[in-house]
Amino acid sequence: MIEYRNLRVAILGGGSVGAQVAALLLEHSAELAARAGAGLELVGVAVRNPDAIRDTEIPQELITTDAESLILGADIVVELIGGIEPARSYILQALNSGADVVTANKAVLANHGPELFAAAEQVGAQLYYEAAVGGAIPIIRPLRDSLAGDRVKRILGIVNGTTNYILDRMDTQGDSLADALAEATRLGYAEADPTADVEGFDAAQKAAILASLAFHTAVPLSSVHREGITGITSEAVLAARKAGYVVKLLAICERFTDTATGVEGVAARVHPALVPVNHPLASVHGANNAVFVEAEAAGDLMFYGAGAGGIETASAVLGDLVSAARRHVAGGPGVAESTRSNLPVLPMSSVTTRYQITLSVIDEPGVLATIARLFSDHGVSVEAVSQSVRDSAPAAQPTATLVIVTHQAGESSLASTVAALGESSVVSSVVSVLRVEGLQ
Amino acid sequence: MIEYRNLRVAILGGGSVGAQVAALLLEHSAELAARAGAGLELVGVAVRNPDAIRDTEIPQELITTDAESLILGADIVVELIGGIEPARSYILQALNSGADVVTANKAVLANHGPELFAAAEQVGAQLYYEAAVGGAIPIIRPLRDSLAGDRVKRILGIVNGTTNYILDRMDTQGDSLADALAEATRLGYAEADPTADVEGFDAAQKAAILASLAFHTAVPLSSVHREGITGITSEAVLAARKAGYVVKLLAICERFTDTATGVEGVAARVHPALVPVNHPLASVHGANNAVFVEAEAAGDLMFYGAGAGGIETASAVLGDLVSAARRHVAGGPGVAESTRSNLPVLPMSSVTTRYQITLSVIDEPGVLATIARLFSDHGVSVEAVSQSVRDSAPAAQPTATLVIVTHQAGESSLASTVAALGESSVVSSVVSVLRVEGLQ
Repeated sequence: MIEYRNLRVAILGGGSVGAQVAALLLEHSAELAARAGAGLELVGVAVRNPDAIRDTEIPQELITTDAESLILGADIVVELIGGIEPARSYILQALNSGADVVTANKAVLANHGPELFAAAEQVGAQLYYEAAVGGAIPIIRPLRDSLAGDRVKRILGIVNGTTNYILDRMDTQGDSLADALAEATRLGYAEADPTADVEGFDAAQKAAILASLAFHTAVPLSSVHREGITGITSEAVLAARKAGYVVKLLAICERFTDTATGVEGVAARVHPALVPVNHPLASVHGANNAVFVEAEAAGDLMFYGAGAGGIETASAVLGDLVSAARRHVAGGPGVAESTRSNLPVLPMSSVTTRYQITLSVIDEPGVLATIARLFSDHGVSVEAVSQSVRDSAPAAQPTATLVIVTHQAGESSLASTVAALGESSVVSSVVSVLRVEGLQ
Repeated sequence: MIEYRNLRVAILGGGSVGAQVAALLLEHSAELAARAGAGLELVGVAVRNPDAIRDTEIPQELITTDAESLILGADIVVELIGGIEPARSYILQALNSGADVVTANKAVLANHGPELFAAAEQVGAQLYYEAAVGGAIPIIRPLRDSLAGDRVKRILGIVNGTTNYILDRMDTQGDSLADALAEATRLGYAEADPTADVEGFDAAQKAAILASLAFHTAVPLSSVHREGITGITSEAVLAARKAGYVVKLLAICERFTDTATGVEGVAARVHPALVPVNHPLASVHGANNAVFVEAEAAGDLMFYGAGAGGIETASAVLGDLVSAARRHVAGGPGVAESTRSNLPVLPMSSVTTRYQITLSVIDEPGVLATIARLFSDHGVSVEAVSQSVRDSAPAAQPTATLVIVTHQAGESSLASTVAALGESSVVSSVVSVLRVEGLQ
């Protein structure tokens, strides 16, 4: 075996992932060199604050605040700063100087993916990002390579550990959203400002990345429909459980034909959804992540594991680092990202799915017929209705609870149905409207 | 984008996978060409019997019986013959002529992997085999690339769909082994001669492949300890369920230190095992496969999907085909298989695991103490004992059932314990001995 020169690795960012990657690179250097076919020499870690206290110590002599000089001398740049700037500029600088880039940065990929992939392709460098979605779970490489000869139809992903932890506690412990969030914060699963997680912004970025990759089509973040979990009550979670469902925040990427226009395209959306209890996604507990992929030939696949954490994310980063090093050793330019299908990105209004609508209705004869007519008038077909016994609270007007599950229906038909239900004299309130996903 | 010449693809084998790969190559040629960066031109399908009736038709002009000439003119050879010869010779011929090879052949890899990988490395060709384990489930690429920077500690795999179907029916329907096997045969999950599946030969080949890859160490098939499921009764499955376990045929690959010698090494084994009902592997139903990976940094990961089937396997083959084509287009030699850790392969006698032992014992005072002493005399520590009420069948000597779960124990200590139990005057019979895997 010919000896190859050491490859110079620069890490940008000294947070928990950066410090873990540095520690593993130093600790396992012989093993990684054997796997990569060349030594991986850590030449520096660029940080904003060299005096910050870190859980995992980085040798003082490797720390620098001069990221740009560090990039200049590197064969492989590992970007772990997060956020858009200066991460985007650093990645572009690295690619334009011919270095391969490994990143865990979902924000920069979801917002500037096409620009970054084009820069990489132009110079034959590689941009790796296994850690950007699902932490340590290998999902980018399977979608890019293993399923490259197949056609992905749909992805249902639990891609945000914080919200899965919260919803799982609400389901298994009966917690309120506020209590579950407080517990998630206490355990370090949720940040001080939990907006990015609970409002679905984090999941939407991951949905854009997965959809772009799976459909070989640039799916901009702005096209991803997004709803968070703040409207989910413990009552809704318990009612779902009784009806045989679990509430999950799903990132959904689909390839389908818009029934109105006949155009085949793709769409991505993030929202809470009811998942049948016997669906593999329903048993994803705690802060774990899982990505369920429906492919034309491969059938149903699921990828499961820890979705976050410094050491877990570091595993994904190191896997990319070894891949990048192997390419250096093997020689030849990088393999370009495939975005050549360029299917149209369809709006949320063209998506059809199933809905569960819970209504509080006036408890008198003929109400069910009135409601059923209202659904059919708006072109929404009802699959199942279940009616609870008369609501127990004494009231001027006795009410009952109706739970209706629809067949596939469009967003706009459903919206007009719900609006009409709200105005109907037999409906005292629309308790909840939830999408149902993953039914066979 | 520079136009690249078409790449010539030869398929060896016209069975259900070969015919499906041919059909998908022809049907999706534009899409595959876009993803690969070059056209994939199917130049021929080598078959033994050109007149065989096939579910999926192969165009007559592509069919040939001259595999060797077909290989000579190919850039990428897809080997789907199965078995060892002539598959091995064809793969070597292809690699030595510089062609990349895609194979779904677990037998040839488990028996001749090192020879084939060495041939590939010598000429800088690639040998892809995603379809050899777990059908369409991407598991080879994640282990080879995504986890290349991590250290795999253990793999627990349900890698044989036939036996999982049988055990799942015994668990969920209460079927006997014979009835479940008959049903598996009727549905086409089991072959006319089911030996390779039910005796664990198929799973052992996959265990050798997974262990070699995960531990960067050549693990020969002959070193894989193998037990099939023919000794599993419906009573054992029901008793396991009552105790909170599911019986699964597991392929287990481990990296550990032999406590006797202090040598760190690896071992692979296949046998039925009790898996706790709340373990992700316990909910793998029907003929599905799943591979559970415990890695040092990444934590627990699971890969789930259909483990077999012509179209599913074809998906994995086509993914490899696109990867091979991308490398041709990118240029440069192939990335060598990493087998550079070369850890010692440890014998089954050095493996420790937990056991559940079910005994029928004489129902009289002091028996429990006698049994407990017998375990401790053989160095096996008992974690839990549960005693059933007196066995209901009237007998000369009243008996009761004891279920004992041990702490981690070695194979040989356990074997001597079981031998002593068999000879003990208080034991009327050793009903079952099963390993317990996946307990936290």
